[in-house]
This record gives sequence, C-alpha cells and structure tokens, in this order.
Amino acid sequence: MNAAILTIGDELLNGQTIDTNAAWMGQELNLIGVSIASKLSVGDEAQAIKDGLDYCFNHASLVIVTGGLGPTKDDITKGCLANYFEDELTFDQGSYDKIKEYFSRTNRQPTEAHKLQCHMPSKAELIDNQRGTAPGMWFAEGDKFLLSMPGVPSEMKGLMKNGGLSKIDAVNTQQNIYHYIMQTAGMGETYIAEQIEDIVSTFPDFLSIAYLPGLASVKLRLTAKGADAEQIKKETEALGARIVSTLGDAVFALGNTKLEEAVGQIAKEKGLTLGTAESCTGGNISRLLTSVSGSSAYYKGSIVAYANDVKMNDLNVSEDTINTHGAVSEETVMEMVEGLINRLHVDVAVAVSGIAGPTGGTPDKPVGTIWIAVGRKGHVLTKKLQLTKTRDLNISYTSVFALNELRRYLNGI
Amino acid sequence: MNAAILTIGDELLNGQTIDTNAAWMGQELNLIGVSIASKLSVGDEAQAIKDGLDYCFNHASLVIVTGGLGPTKDDITKGCLANYFEDELTFDQGSYDKIKEYFSRTNRQPTEAHKLQCHMPSKAELIDNQRGTAPGMWFAEGDKFLLSMPGVPSEMKGLMKNGGLSKIDAVNTQQNIYHYIMQTAGMGETYIAEQIEDIVSTFPDFLSIAYLPGLASVKLRLTAKGADAEQIKKETEALGARIVSTLGDAVFALGNTKLEEAVGQIAKEKGLTLGTAESCTGGNISRLLTSVSGSSAYYKGSIVAYANDVKMNDLNVSEDTINTHGAVSEETVMEMVEGLINRLHVDVAVAVSGIAGPTGGTPDKPVGTIWIAVGRKGHVLTKKLQLTKTRDLNISYTSVFALNELRRYLNGI
Repeated sequence: MNAAILTIGDELLNGQTIDTNAAWMGQELNLIGVSIASKLSVGDEAQAIKDGLDYCFNHASLVIVTGGLGPTKDDITKGCLANYFEDELTFDQGSYDKIKEYFSRTNRQPTEAHKLQCHMPSKAELIDNQRGTAPGMWFAEGDKFLLSMPGVPSEMKGLMKNGGLSKIDAVNTQQNIYHYIMQTAGMGETYIAEQIEDIVSTFPDFLSIAYLPGLASVKLRLTAKGADAEQIKKETEALGARIVSTLGDAVFALGNTKLEEAVGQIAKEKGLTLGTAESCTGGNISRLLTSVSGSSAYYKGSIVAYANDVKMNDLNVSEDTINTHGAVSEETVMEMVEGLINRLHVDVAVAVSGIAGPTGGTPDKPVGTIWIAVGRKGHVLTKKLQLTKTRDLNISYTSVFALNELRRYLNGI
Repeated sequence: MNAAILTIGDELLNGQTIDTNAAWMGQELNLIGVSIASKLSVGDEAQAIKDGLDYCFNHASLVIVTGGLGPTKDDITKGCLANYFEDELTFDQGSYDKIKEYFSRTNRQPTEAHKLQCHMPSKAELIDNQRGTAPGMWFAEGDKFLLSMPGVPSEMKGLMKNGGLSKIDAVNTQQNIYHYIMQTAGMGETYIAEQIEDIVSTFPDFLSIAYLPGLASVKLRLTAKGADAEQIKKETEALGARIVSTLGDAVFALGNTKLEEAVGQIAKEKGLTLGTAESCTGGNISRLLTSVSGSSAYYKGSIVAYANDVKMNDLNVSEDTINTHGAVSEETVMEMVEGLINRLHVDVAVAVSGIAGPTGGTPDKPVGTIWIAVGRKGHVLTKKLQLTKTRDLNISYTSVFALNELRRYLNGI
C-alpha cells in the first residue's frame, strides 16, 4: 500500500521547525509494509490544503495528515477535511467531556476556543489522543483512507501507536517490505559501487540498493518488496552477506549502530581502555566517544593540546620534534600517542594534528593537511589526510576518519 | 516571490534521513524576501519527479530541487529536468576537468560513472560546487525559474551561498525585508517576552518579532517589511536597541555571531588565555571553542578527565575530595579549575562534572545533576544545574550554559 504524508503549518515552510515527524512515520509505516510515495508540506491556507489533498490522493490510497488541529486560529485543517469528504462539522459531546476532564487534572477550565475545537466531521471515526486535547480522525471512503493527527510529535506518535497504525494495518493488503542496512567507513561511494557491481547486477527485481553517503562513511540500504515475507528476507540477507564479505573491514555494523558505538563495543569486548590526544579536532573525537552511554567503562579521557607548549608539557612531545618537523607531522602525532598513553594510562590512543583552516596553511603544508596516529605502547600506525573542505567539515571528517582508524586498529589486536 | 522546494530521494520518504535542508533553505530564502509555498518530497522515480515538478510550478514561480545528482544509479534527477525543459543532456568538458582536478588533489582517478555524471542539460547555467563533484544547475524560462542542487547538506549550502541565493535575489522583485537579530543566552523565552512586552506592544504594523529558542539560548529576530528600505531599517534598529538595553548582559551578540565566537572575541580583546577541564561534556566545550577559526590565539587546550584517576593524576583533584564529596560536586569542579590552570598555564578555565544519563544517577544526585565552575587563580565561581533531558541534550545544554558562564566571567574581568 502506498501512502502520502501531508503536513500543514507555516512553521514547516519558513524554517522555524525541522520536520522530524515525517521520518518517524516513514519508518513505522515501512515496518508494516506501507511505502511512502510522497511527502508534502503546505501552509495554513484552505486552497493550499485542498490542492495538497488532491495531489496526495493522486499518488496514494492512504493520506496521513498532521498539523492544524489545535485551538488557535491558524488551524483550519478540520474544515478542509470536512469539505473534501463532502461532510459537515457537528458538536461532539464526548470530545468536550474529554477536554474538560483533561483540564480538570491540571485545575484549569476549557475556553470557548476549546469548545469550537470539539466540532468534528460526522464521517470521521475519532481516535483517542492520550497526550493532548485534539483527537485523531480516520476517514474511509471506498479505497481512499485518511488519518489526521495533531502535529505535536508526542501526540502524533501516541495516536499512531494507540490506534492509527492498527487502522492502517487493517486496510493494508499489500506486499511486505524488508530493509537490510550496512554501515561502512573509510571507502567512497563510487569505489563501493564498483566493488559490489557484480553482486548488485544479479539482484532480483524485488530488491533495490541505495547509497547514503555521510562524512567519511557510507550507509548502504537494501530494500526488498514482495508478497512472501520469509522469502524476500532470506534472499536479501544472503545477498547482503555477500556484499559485507566483499567490502570486508570497511563494514563496521549492520543496522543503525553508530561508528563510536562500534568502537566502544570492540574496546569493551577486548577489555581495552581508550584515550585521545587532539589538536585540530579540539576534543571532537572525545565528544563522539563519550556520547555513547556507558563509555566510562572503556574511555578514560583526552588531552586537547591546542597550543604547542601543551603538546610538549602535557604530552611529552619533544621540542626538537616540533622545531624540526612541525606540530603537524607524522613524528608529532606518534609522540602524542605515546605521551597520552603514559599520561592517562590507557591501552590504546588516537592522536590528531592538522590544519583545519581556513588560515594557517603553508606551501609545504596547505590547509587540510592532517596527520593521524593510532597505537598502543611501542606500536603506532599513522595516516595522512589532505582535505579540501571547510573548517567545520575538515574537523568532522577527520574525527570520523580517526575513529574508523581506531576501530580498525582495535580489530587487529 | 513564492518558491516551492522539491526534494528527491527514497531515503527522505522511508525515514532513513531527517530533512534538515528544507528548514535551512526556508530561513535563507525568507531573509531575501522569498516565501516558501510548499515543500514536496518524492522518490527516485521519473514519473514522481515529473508530477512533483508540475505540482511545484503550479504553486510557485521558483522551484528549488535537491537530491539526485550523484554518480550512483539511483540518481535520475538530471534527465528528468532535461525532459521537463524539453532539453537534452550533452557532455560538458568543463565539469569533467573539474572532477579530474578534484580527484587529482587526493591522488585518485575519476571512473566511468563520473564521466557519465558530466552530461548536463544544455539550457542549464552551471553553478560551481566547491564541496563536491556535481555542479548546481539554474534554469530560467519565461517567469519560471529552477535551481537544482545535490542533497548533501554541505554541498547544498555551499551552492546556495556561492551563486544560488544571488541568482534568486536577482529575479525576485518583491518588497524590502530587513532583519535585526539579537542573540541571548541564559534567559528563558517566556521571561524574555515578559521583560520586553512594553516595547513589543509599541511595534508599528510593518514589524514583527520571532523568538527562536535554542539550547540554553534564545535568538530574537525582528522582521520589517515595507517599501521604504531606509525608514524600516532606522525604526527597527531603534526598537532593537531598546530591547538590547532592557535585556542587558543576556544579549551576547547582534547578528549571527555564535556564543563561542563571542567568548573568543572577549578573550582576545582582554588578552586572556583559556582552557577547559571536562568530565560529562567529554570535550564538547573544547570542540565548540576550537570550532572558531583563529581560536589558537587565546585557547590552549583541555583535559577531558572522564575517569576519576585522570581527575586526580592530571588535574590534581584530591582523593579526599572525591571520596568525601564525589566526582560530581562543587568541590571537585573548583579543584578541576585550579588544576587545569596550573597544568596548562591559562588565565581562565571552566570545568564541568555531572551525570549526563541515562544511567549513573543516585537518590542524592539524580541523572541531570551538573556542577560548573569558572575562574582564574584564587577566584572561582560555581553553578549547579538540574537537567531533565536526554543524554545528548544534557551534554549540549551544559556546554552552552558553561560557555555563557565563561563569557559572563570574562566580561567581569
């Protein structure tokens, strides 16, 4: 079954609000075999809503509408829906009783606006909203279905879980959908595509692949659609496993695990403690590692040595090394790793020094020159990057790249 | 001028990706007087893209398309645009030279897929993409305009800033818009609104105010629209200045200056060096301070003391303090400030220790208990926070709050 999402509200168009509802609904609907054909946002205006409904029903048999059900005056959705289904609004005592009860819990009285809010399209089946005052509405006319919900994320999610999804599931007679997700780092999208071309070219018709590139990482998603849930899952997993085996070490996880979580899992399994010594990344690698709940089990800390005297005093990088090779050099990052291990008493450390830009480059070492070292006592590996992005992106890219080098190093222990 | 945004990509529909591009574009376009009439996402499918273009041009004279310009085979946007404008794709040597040059910087060779990517609609004016291989495309036909860009946020933003917005601005003949932006931190939205109620109630009709709350910060934006550019600017600035004077120390900048930039400016002006000692924020405050280009002039570094033995060994927090008061205590963060100042030889330091959650809380110190200290040698101030958000948000909120405490402390020196 195909669905179209229609979200209503000026705040979604002028950039005040980032629409996170649609992504959540997309995921939940996919899980019950409903594909999203399109997603449309329009302003709080009757004609725009009517045009939007027309567009959505032209592309899907199910339309999910969010927004525009509250008591304030920019909310006109309900009237538009009644018009669309040639229906009228009538006062619903049950809804009003519910609002009164809801308000009494917080010692408040409903206003006239709330009473107006209780006029409902007579054809709509109401779905109880346990987190707010406006109920959900379910319209079914022939092979057209429409679910309308408030735009507040917690209310929308509550309504979907407590009624919306099961209504949809009951009228959905379509095929099943299965996703298989592989997370890679350190390999470009085009290179990956070439590596697995032979496998992708044998894909059955029911299976498609998407490349979702991030910074220094690419997510691969296989999507299977078909009548036989068991069979498409089995075939997809078999082909996914062939891709994983072809890409080898570049795959750091299946599913939605983050790279910093994957690093943490390996460290925990192997009983290794970690630390970072950062110059140009300024603490960003440390921030990523500690963003994982429970990271204190393996992560001890970082010395952010932004100034050269901190590199010398606190990481024991020799003055001679800095004078001879510079703060951005293979020699310096190697000594940073050794210094950090000695200082913080960790098993494995990663160190970074580079020129994030936009200033600070020289002909020898242009902006974007980055040295990375990762290692344990007596065994340190290095890599050099030459980046061409903005300061922010150079820092973010370097951080992900360094985390991936740390992961590969831990795998080898 | 009205615009419609069309985003292309299955990943936007099935919930894999949250669309942050549209909100950013909405804000930028609003700033040059362009309103967004609708926002539509469709899958990687020719008919859906064609229908989407029709819908968008029915509602706006400018259509902004993102997504579907990369080298992999789920990308079909370009052909659809050529069809739509009754155009054809021809090989563009300039684009190929650019890709070759881009790859040579990282010692790589373009593939056949990259060559295919260089076939461009002949009617499109290409806009240089400094952050990727696919250029932007600008179509102008009568009173219809279309800008097509890759969906990768950094590339889209780069193309908008370096060509896209100015192309749009040149064909937009609407009334003048003037924005006056005030950045505040450490004061809630409701409290601010009460403080400035008397001023806002005197606003002329052409002027409106928006409260844009962030984490531990609120941006206030005055928007003036009118025929007389000079006059609306003058009146808006006068009212803005009254608001700034009412809010006092809470305002850290006018315009889009970030809090970490404001901190850096004060440190630079006063010739003070800075450092951080972080536990639960894990390096995030350091990351924010070093995200500012030129921060090495005043920022020396950080010790991220995630483990207690790092707090003791490297920040000289006494074992007695940790045993008696705990790692999350006023005493510990005060000693962290002193220890950091002695270790890194900085003038002013900020220290943070807390329980970011979701685990690690106790009845005495529940999740969200955070201690912050800021000071110089012999003079340290502290603050306690009790937060109730998720781990990520607790860390982000604490970081901004601590930066603001640092700013206020520097202002007082």
